[in-house]
Amino acid sequence: MTSAKTTPRTLLVISAHAGDFVWRAGGAIALAAARGERAKVVCLSFGERGESAKAWRAGRTLDEIKAIRREEAENAATTLGAEIEFLDAGDYPLVETTELVDRLVGVYRELAPDVVLTHPLADPYNGDHPAAARMALQARVLAQAAGYDAPGEPLGAPPVFFFEPHQPEQCDFKPDVLLDITAVFDRKRKAMECLPAQQHMWDYYTDLAKRRGVQLRRNAGPNLGLPHDTMGEAYMRLYPQVTGVLE
Amino acid sequence: MTSAKTTPRTLLVISAHAGDFVWRAGGAIALAAARGERAKVVCLSFGERGESAKAWRAGRTLDEIKAIRREEAENAATTLGAEIEFLDAGDYPLVETTELVDRLVGVYRELAPDVVLTHPLADPYNGDHPAAARMALQARVLAQAAGYDAPGEPLGAPPVFFFEPHQPEQCDFKPDVLLDITAVFDRKRKAMECLPAQQHMWDYYTDLAKRRGVQLRRNAGPNLGLPHDTMGEAYMRLYPQVTGVLE
Amino acid sequence: MTSAKTTPRTLLVISAHAGDFVWRAGGAIALAAARGERAKVVCLSFGERGESAKAWRAGRTLDEIKAIRREEAENAATTLGAEIEFLDAGDYPLVETTELVDRLVGVYRELAPDVVLTHPLADPYNGDHPAAARMALQARVLAQAAGYDAPGEPLGAPPVFFFEPHQPEQCDFKPDVLLDITAVFDRKRKAMECLPAQQHMWDYYTDLAKRRGVQLRRNAGPNLGLPHDTMGEAYMRLYPQVTGVLE
Amino acid sequence: MTSAKTTPRTLLVISAHAGDFVWRAGGAIALAAARGERAKVVCLSFGERGESAKAWRAGRTLDEIKAIRREEAENAATTLGAEIEFLDAGDYPLVETTELVDRLVGVYRELAPDVVLTHPLADPYNGDHPAAARMALQARVLAQAAGYDAPGEPLGAPPVFFFEPHQPEQCDFKPDVLLDITAVFDRKRKAMECLPAQQHMWDYYTDLAKRRGVQLRRNAGPNLGLPHDTMGEAYMRLYPQVTGVLE
Amino acid sequence: MTSAKTTPRTLLVISAHAGDFVWRAGGAIALAAARGERAKVVCLSFGERGESAKAWRAGRTLDEIKAIRREEAENAATTLGAEIEFLDAGDYPLVETTELVDRLVGVYRELAPDVVLTHPLADPYNGDHPAAARMALQARVLAQAAGYDAPGEPLGAPPVFFFEPHQPEQCDFKPDVLLDITAVFDRKRKAMECLPAQQHMWDYYTDLAKRRGVQLRRNAGPNLGLPHDTMGEAYMRLYPQVTGVLE
Amino acid sequence: MTSAKTTPRTLLVISAHAGDFVWRAGGAIALAAARGERAKVVCLSFGERGESAKAWRAGRTLDEIKAIRREEAENAATTLGAEIEFLDAGDYPLVETTELVDRLVGVYRELAPDVVLTHPLADPYNGDHPAAARMALQARVLAQAAGYDAPGEPLGAPPVFFFEPHQPEQCDFKPDVLLDITAVFDRKRKAMECLPAQQHMWDYYTDLAKRRGVQLRRNAGPNLGLPHDTMGEAYMRLYPQVTGVLE
Repeated sequence: MTSAKTTPRTLLVISAHAGDFVWRAGGAIALAAARGERAKVVCLSFGERGESAKAWRAGRTLDEIKAIRREEAENAATTLGAEIEFLDAGDYPLVETTELVDRLVGVYRELAPDVVLTHPLADPYNGDHPAAARMALQARVLAQAAGYDAPGEPLGAPPVFFFEPHQPEQCDFKPDVLLDITAVFDRKRKAMECLPAQQHMWDYYTDLAKRRGVQLRRNAGPNLGLPHDTMGEAYMRLYPQVTGVLE
Repeated sequence: MTSAKTTPRTLLVISAHAGDFVWRAGGAIALAAARGERAKVVCLSFGERGESAKAWRAGRTLDEIKAIRREEAENAATTLGAEIEFLDAGDYPLVETTELVDRLVGVYRELAPDVVLTHPLADPYNGDHPAAARMALQARVLAQAAGYDAPGEPLGAPPVFFFEPHQPEQCDFKPDVLLDITAVFDRKRKAMECLPAQQHMWDYYTDLAKRRGVQLRRNAGPNLGLPHDTMGEAYMRLYPQVTGVLE
Repeated sequence: MTSAKTTPRTLLVISAHAGDFVWRAGGAIALAAARGERAKVVCLSFGERGESAKAWRAGRTLDEIKAIRREEAENAATTLGAEIEFLDAGDYPLVETTELVDRLVGVYRELAPDVVLTHPLADPYNGDHPAAARMALQARVLAQAAGYDAPGEPLGAPPVFFFEPHQPEQCDFKPDVLLDITAVFDRKRKAMECLPAQQHMWDYYTDLAKRRGVQLRRNAGPNLGLPHDTMGEAYMRLYPQVTGVLE
Repeated sequence: MTSAKTTPRTLLVISAHAGDFVWRAGGAIALAAARGERAKVVCLSFGERGESAKAWRAGRTLDEIKAIRREEAENAATTLGAEIEFLDAGDYPLVETTELVDRLVGVYRELAPDVVLTHPLADPYNGDHPAAARMALQARVLAQAAGYDAPGEPLGAPPVFFFEPHQPEQCDFKPDVLLDITAVFDRKRKAMECLPAQQHMWDYYTDLAKRRGVQLRRNAGPNLGLPHDTMGEAYMRLYPQVTGVLE
Repeated sequence: MTSAKTTPRTLLVISAHAGDFVWRAGGAIALAAARGERAKVVCLSFGERGESAKAWRAGRTLDEIKAIRREEAENAATTLGAEIEFLDAGDYPLVETTELVDRLVGVYRELAPDVVLTHPLADPYNGDHPAAARMALQARVLAQAAGYDAPGEPLGAPPVFFFEPHQPEQCDFKPDVLLDITAVFDRKRKAMECLPAQQHMWDYYTDLAKRRGVQLRRNAGPNLGLPHDTMGEAYMRLYPQVTGVLE
Repeated sequence: MTSAKTTPRTLLVISAHAGDFVWRAGGAIALAAARGERAKVVCLSFGERGESAKAWRAGRTLDEIKAIRREEAENAATTLGAEIEFLDAGDYPLVETTELVDRLVGVYRELAPDVVLTHPLADPYNGDHPAAARMALQARVLAQAAGYDAPGEPLGAPPVFFFEPHQPEQCDFKPDVLLDITAVFDRKRKAMECLPAQQHMWDYYTDLAKRRGVQLRRNAGPNLGLPHDTMGEAYMRLYPQVTGVLE
């Protein structure tokens, strides 16, 4: 469906920790930026407790770790072409509150995003991820209500895509969209390299992009002429796709 | 993904009985035709035993019923802008055979469809529908194999959409695509009216199109400016969508 | 199973917002009332923020909107033959609290309902609905405990039915009970007409009742002699049915 | 829903092997007979290969085993108050054929059953059970079609209940009906004792009836005054229940 | 996988109420103790409100009931060979708090368990059970994080098993591990008999152990030579099994 | 459970095509062989039509392709330390017949395997895989029946593991066993290299083994001291695990 909006399209990514958006949605973000769209990442926390084991073992303080994670994530966002905002809500656990949801309503109302990306709703390895997703989804619905008391116009109904968790099958993640990120994969790799503490992930997510690329080609069919080194990202849709063409 | 093919796109609809394509996919067919694409319907049977109660009660013979159903379906297909072919494989039950699957492989190889529509895989009210779907899917996979002995080139990987069954929830039918058929609904209604024996279905499927249209607007969001009388058809994807843009 | 109770049967409906019980369960309520049973509706909120867009756009204040919604819902309840109580807990979001659950325990203990109706547990379009359902279910279990500190006798085990959400398939709503509301549909329609702000819903839910009626006849079989204009409502059971006869 | 039929109600049980109906549905059969209804059991095979290990080890011939199993099953059916018919289609494997389905269509058309019981559709321990269920369900649908060439009137839409398999959780069997068989349990026990070769099952299925009885009381609630030794059988519905009262 | 730890293995059982560990996991606990392993039970509450109906009817005070339940559970734990700790967090409802989760993190850090047992995540009959499970799982993940502020070393990744709920099918409990508890069943029975207020459960859970034993033998195959009176307990794994041998 | 058998353990792998066992179960086979166990692979077809695109494009005849595939598979089996047998039943489609199932019963009776590996039951990309799995499972059940007419003793109840399909999420493949194949990965790689026509798969399945190895370490926990280059294979269990220890 062609939007009637005249402003450029906007992508909103809501993630639990500072690094998630890079590994899981870096390609989608870079694609949006490459098309001249606005892309904004909201990190609910820095991942300072749950995803910074190396820094803790090195004896860093909480504030130091948060500062490091912030800087790394800012660099990665800049590399991808996105804005980034940190809500600093704390992690491990990321606690769901109406205040935090209200802040997200504010983000929705201000940005009026055309597309929303967040974590899937199940992850037995990391409770912060589903907590972030639940808040992202609740805020989206609240922002649609004319009666919700927040600045800005009621939100439309932007589609929501869940990005891929670390162990997809254990999170009931069954891809129903395969996104071709070949054109921007170099940029995604560079963004990953902005996170030196998780260097073992660089190759892991490069391999994953190859794997999703192989599947993308297989599902697209040979007649599309996709190159052998096609790189992909996998997503799930929460709501039905609205379209004028079956394809 | 933009296909590299230069020929016009082709839509293939495989249904168990002569009337199915009208109620369940008439909008998608008319949309394809309106875009100048080729649309072809393959009916595995006429629905002569299972979907012609009125004619049987009126004392018609089997051959008469098949002739009536054929004519009605041809009229409906013409109205929608589609070609139609009848495999006359018998219904109630529609029996799965390797011969019938082989004929479908031939259809795939000849048409090289870009999109395939068929029944969903579960229907506790009508065993012919899943049987048709299983054969349609098996033939699609066989047609992809270089080693399968049939004329024509190996098939690509056209996406498959399941159209909506009569009692969707009982068939585990959860729409993940809502197709806007507003522009061609008049044509669909005319096609439905080519099937006078099932007149009670005309309003039932008009109401359904309204209902899916309401849902389509709700999922699209108000900022798309869709009209209040939006009409829709619901589909499920079997394979992941391959795309370059999340929307 | 025939209850040993000598008092008339009691139906309890717990809904998130003021209008839900009309669209989704009006037939069941009117049937109960027509049988001389007690029917009580408990609305956790007025739906003042999330389901009153027209009033907000018209510039009404929060208190005005709550008053309007209350009056409309009271009229609808009276039309259906039900009592109604508003807990005024706020909506969008409806926040789950132990206090609110405790109030519901009080309702259960006082009424000792024979049947309970509420929202299904999933609704990606409206978080208040599942929140209401979770509280309704939790309170029912707490009310059964001899040790729970609230007036009245411990509750029995009334069956729970989920009524139909707006987009059933997206809410994993698979009807397993189809209720024949033909005899009271006029009354349901009149109750719907007590809610003028949602006039577009009148026909939508009339169409739905027809649709569920068609399915009801199909599942009942022709030998039951149901009329062509049978009207229905769909429900899901949470707990197994207890019975002395399979039918 | 009250049936318009004036003839007594009829229960049809379709099972794969000669003993299944006793363990799994003996209570439902005895209840129907006790109400003066007609009850008929159709055994697709004698279970001569797959469920007669003791007889094979004792050196019996195939014909001897079939004769023994027939006599035992006839005794059990008589004890329960049911007619019984053996289609002798062979077991391990029970092979699905259109001829066998056609014979079942004949049974449906002749009996016009009000209720149908059969195996659930999944059983990783015994392929004959789902095969029997698939044929039972397919024949029911075919028997409804005016155009299906078999004597008798088209069938209505009798509800179908799946009875409990040996390892319910492994067969995705989630009870949604708990049937109170207390009044006829003695008769079920006597019927079980007609099958001496499977004596270890007598206590196993008595224990199961107690277990389902405990659950039945728990789901019914204490106010129904059910006795402590309530005995139960568990069933799943395939189609939605059609009713005029939620209870 | 053989653990590299030199200390004896440790089993941690986290349950909502004081009696749960006996009925549902008594065999696993006794087996661990019999192997010389450490076994510890953590009861979040005494089950003083929700599972002590008889005591309430007898007019006992809350404190009396808690004392009785504590003593009974201590006796049962001692019989099984386990330590026991009560967090006295209250039941009906058991309220999830970050403080309570933090106490559980402390337990994990201190014990460094090799295996964890808790309730399954769904139970429509008892909300405390899933609440306990959610907290047990969340605490396990938090305890793994180097940055979580609690004494002790970060936890490894002990496997989690859900024990069997009272109505397994209604709780989506599908056993994927059958544990042979024959050798310690006498001890489990003695532990059950430490709970005199729930005497009706002694036989119920003895019958269940027989039933799971029958299934265990059936899944093990006859060539294992298991005795006819094999007794079993059923479990579900939350995480994939890690192993060096398929068996 | 320790088997009472004194003969060495036996692993049976049943696959649709000649190459499947290498990519998907090569590690499990090599591990069994390394432990001195017997390992046997049964290929229902050579994959001559569906998995030999390159040879068909090169103009090879059917017989040539079958000969090539046979030789390659024999080399791979030898490399892994397994016997191999080809039933030459044809592929694309692999047609299910009672004769073919009977041949598999013979295999089971002769081998008396302790463990069975085969394809999962769903694969929308390749109908031969589920067909092979259905036959493998049906034959296993038939082989257990004393009355099934085939040489040898009735089979026990060997556990069945599904190996990983090419697009696991699309095949509802959720790993519940992660097998550590580090010690034999070199051998698996050598076996893969016996299949030169599918060279692009060598790295794909090496990457997959790394990926499953990362997950294996994560699920095992750091205290097990697994090396960073742990390699893994993923499996699903069909039947519950029978065990004397929870671990």
